[in-house]
Amino acid sequence: MMEEVKDKDKFSGWYLKILEDAGLIDSRYPVKGMVVYKGWGLFIIRQMQRHLEKLLEEAGHEPVLFPVLIPDDILGKETKHIAGFEEQVFWVTHAGANELERRLALRPTSETAIYETFRLWIRSHQDLPLKIHQSCAVYRYETKHTRPLIRGREFLWNEGHSAHIDDEDAMRNIEEIKEIYGKLIRDILCIPFIVSRRPEWDRFPGATDTFAFDTIMPNDKTLQIATIHNLGQNFSRAFEITYEDEKGEHKYVHQTSYGPSFGRLLAALVSIHGDEKGLVLPPEISPIQCIIVPLFFKGTDKERIQRYAEDVGKKLNEAGIRNHIDSRDERPGNKFYYWEMKGVPLRIEVGPRDMERNELTVVRRDTGKRSQLKFDRVSEIPKIFDEITENLRKTAQKRFDQRFFKIGSMEELSKNSGRGILSLGWCGNDECAEKIERYVDILSVNNDRGTCIVCGRDGKEVNAANTY
Amino acid sequence: MMEEVKDKDKFSGWYLKILEDAGLIDSRYPVKGMVVYKGWGLFIIRQMQRHLEKLLEEAGHEPVLFPVLIPDDILGKETKHIAGFEEQVFWVTHAGANELERRLALRPTSETAIYETFRLWIRSHQDLPLKIHQSCAVYRYETKHTRPLIRGREFLWNEGHSAHIDDEDAMRNIEEIKEIYGKLIRDILCIPFIVSRRPEWDRFPGATDTFAFDTIMPNDKTLQIATIHNLGQNFSRAFEITYEDEKGEHKYVHQTSYGPSFGRLLAALVSIHGDEKGLVLPPEISPIQCIIVPLFFKGTDKERIQRYAEDVGKKLNEAGIRNHIDSRDERPGNKFYYWEMKGVPLRIEVGPRDMERNELTVVRRDTGKRSQLKFDRVSEIPKIFDEITENLRKTAQKRFDQRFFKIGSMEELSKNSGRGILSLGWCGNDECAEKIERYVDILSVNNDRGTCIVCGRDGKEVNAANTY
Repeated sequence: MMEEVKDKDKFSGWYLKILEDAGLIDSRYPVKGMVVYKGWGLFIIRQMQRHLEKLLEEAGHEPVLFPVLIPDDILGKETKHIAGFEEQVFWVTHAGANELERRLALRPTSETAIYETFRLWIRSHQDLPLKIHQSCAVYRYETKHTRPLIRGREFLWNEGHSAHIDDEDAMRNIEEIKEIYGKLIRDILCIPFIVSRRPEWDRFPGATDTFAFDTIMPNDKTLQIATIHNLGQNFSRAFEITYEDEKGEHKYVHQTSYGPSFGRLLAALVSIHGDEKGLVLPPEISPIQCIIVPLFFKGTDKERIQRYAEDVGKKLNEAGIRNHIDSRDERPGNKFYYWEMKGVPLRIEVGPRDMERNELTVVRRDTGKRSQLKFDRVSEIPKIFDEITENLRKTAQKRFDQRFFKIGSMEELSKNSGRGILSLGWCGNDECAEKIERYVDILSVNNDRGTCIVCGRDGKEVNAANTY
Repeated sequence: MMEEVKDKDKFSGWYLKILEDAGLIDSRYPVKGMVVYKGWGLFIIRQMQRHLEKLLEEAGHEPVLFPVLIPDDILGKETKHIAGFEEQVFWVTHAGANELERRLALRPTSETAIYETFRLWIRSHQDLPLKIHQSCAVYRYETKHTRPLIRGREFLWNEGHSAHIDDEDAMRNIEEIKEIYGKLIRDILCIPFIVSRRPEWDRFPGATDTFAFDTIMPNDKTLQIATIHNLGQNFSRAFEITYEDEKGEHKYVHQTSYGPSFGRLLAALVSIHGDEKGLVLPPEISPIQCIIVPLFFKGTDKERIQRYAEDVGKKLNEAGIRNHIDSRDERPGNKFYYWEMKGVPLRIEVGPRDMERNELTVVRRDTGKRSQLKFDRVSEIPKIFDEITENLRKTAQKRFDQRFFKIGSMEELSKNSGRGILSLGWCGNDECAEKIERYVDILSVNNDRGTCIVCGRDGKEVNAANTY
């Protein structure tokens, strides 16, 4: 985000406008909290999904797809889980003119649907670990203010579920998933993040531990983009998921579940890399990686330039680069603005002089830098993509790193709340937490080396921030 | 299907068993008519989806994704449409503990959700044609007997929707979609079909015309696998979708909608190509295209053979062929049976003799034919895939073509109903149709050159069959 747009008041308006202008979504759908995904946005989400699914499947996680409806009694089997979700569940009660005998929930998450089936799939220790994942939409009746892609009532994600012989193997899976999500979020999407172990009151309902991936948005609020839960044996006891170990004893499995939100990842991608001209997309996930703009000046041979542009397009196709030739009857400047707004990483201009010299003019979206490239060297463009990716990652990381502050008192807290992620001391008592949480939410308890900024007692060092 | 399995009584049991044995789905999910898609089945569906989406997008159809929930009043805007679907709609009436102000339908199909938005997207003739598509699940409360993948209450499909300036352009789109579906169904899935113009009483609710793709299952029943509807101006009038033409006049758009069912395509794929050993998959959509089985005989150097198998795997990877090495501690015969059951098109056996000769033993799933291939000629395997595809297509087409019969009397009808697609005469009157439909459903009215087999009057020639 450039300075101009980084202004906190302007950010919100900029964000809503660019989602529509760039053709990512249409938020006029007549159900609150539900949006229409349009071509440009859907492509980016599908690319994220493909990358993630590939990483998961290479690590032995099997794809599945469970139904969207979960019977009432099954959703309610794990008591803390249903207590945490019951206010957010959409209920199907009728079909045609008939009332259903038992109401069906639109899945708010799929632990219960999937674990009812895990019981059937798991018999012996040889069936473990069982690691599955699905890309789907989930439904939550959010009562907070909804915001496109960030907080909706229908959202797209990938959810993973596993079962293990013991806690050690469950923890191994948690580390594996941290690494896989890191590859997607940092390496491919160029989004910086920290992983926090959430305090007890902020755990997923039914989990014994929750780890969350937080990034920082341009308005300095943190956005939770993915979570990983250690479920211990809470669900396996409720759903009777047991395995026979090598000695013939029946034991409850240990479980984990996890998921990134594709909507929130898209929101972070848009917000963190975007600037006053619009989107800036990492090449790996951009629907069009190179936009080719033929320059038709007065007196030039349009047809020859168009043919040259097409030759460039063919060459790019051969190199596996997604491209498009914009030959519309429009002024070049308008085309430049349009594709910059859409975030296309590289613009290739082909004018009469380029054609004569057998060259292309190449303009980077991230830096605006222009350079000349020989036609025969089109195959070097992936190297430029790597440079763009590297630059986006570094720039975002630098800005992220500048938003960590150490806070020593309540006065400092009141002055600095909302500036990013604050490190401060907390004694561990509820009353002091409440006072701190008037300004910020506690993201994680880091260690036992803090002095409480409320009461002055020895305690813990915690991270805290204004959160979405 | 081999003769043995073609037995009509046996087919149904064979079908249900192979779905589970091959790991396509699990039908024990505790909501009637909803199944769990497992890895093997989901991969095949995703491959179909990718091929179809690619064909659509190359022809200018844009991907979108609309919400699953449709408000009551919007679903009800086109009167014939809602009349046709109202008995099949799942209704969300509550969220958390609250009753919703207006109930929300789980989409049974998305015409109404999408056309409410088309009204916002379409302004002028320059916005037309508008052609979009989405891959998603839809929900219908089927009261008929449900059958996995064939008739369910949640099913996966791709639905396309278009808007045009006139009927001519709408018809052009219908022809384009016929061609695209044909490429998917015939060329890639090797499934034979006919396209029928459905009689009036069997049209999609709200359509002026419905064209259906029917294939024939091994029990000689026809299975409708895709449909295309001409919607005329029925929906554009109900949803006020107008455009300004070149003269500045406002006109209602002409529309079409269409969709293949991925579940039914998978059901047809399984049933039509399968045999007594299990699935037979066309290479293009098989999750694993080559299964490599190292043969460890007594006294052989296991490690060397394993390394040789890995070299073969690498070579296949380089050629972009999906492969897997089955090095489990199992007898080769068991492995052969297992992968034959899963339908893998090609088995590569590598034993000591193959290794010495720098060869592979290659066994086709469709014909069982064995041959030797030099290690350096692995790149020729795609040619074998083409031969397999061609063979599957021809074999299925031949069997399909043998199931058309001409019927001249009610007596012949009673003897031949259930043998495939019957051509017979019908006068056009309801009473005679009812008598015919005691035996068979009328699929299409072909021409005006028939003699009614009920009353003997001059009339139409129609196609009829026992349908799923």
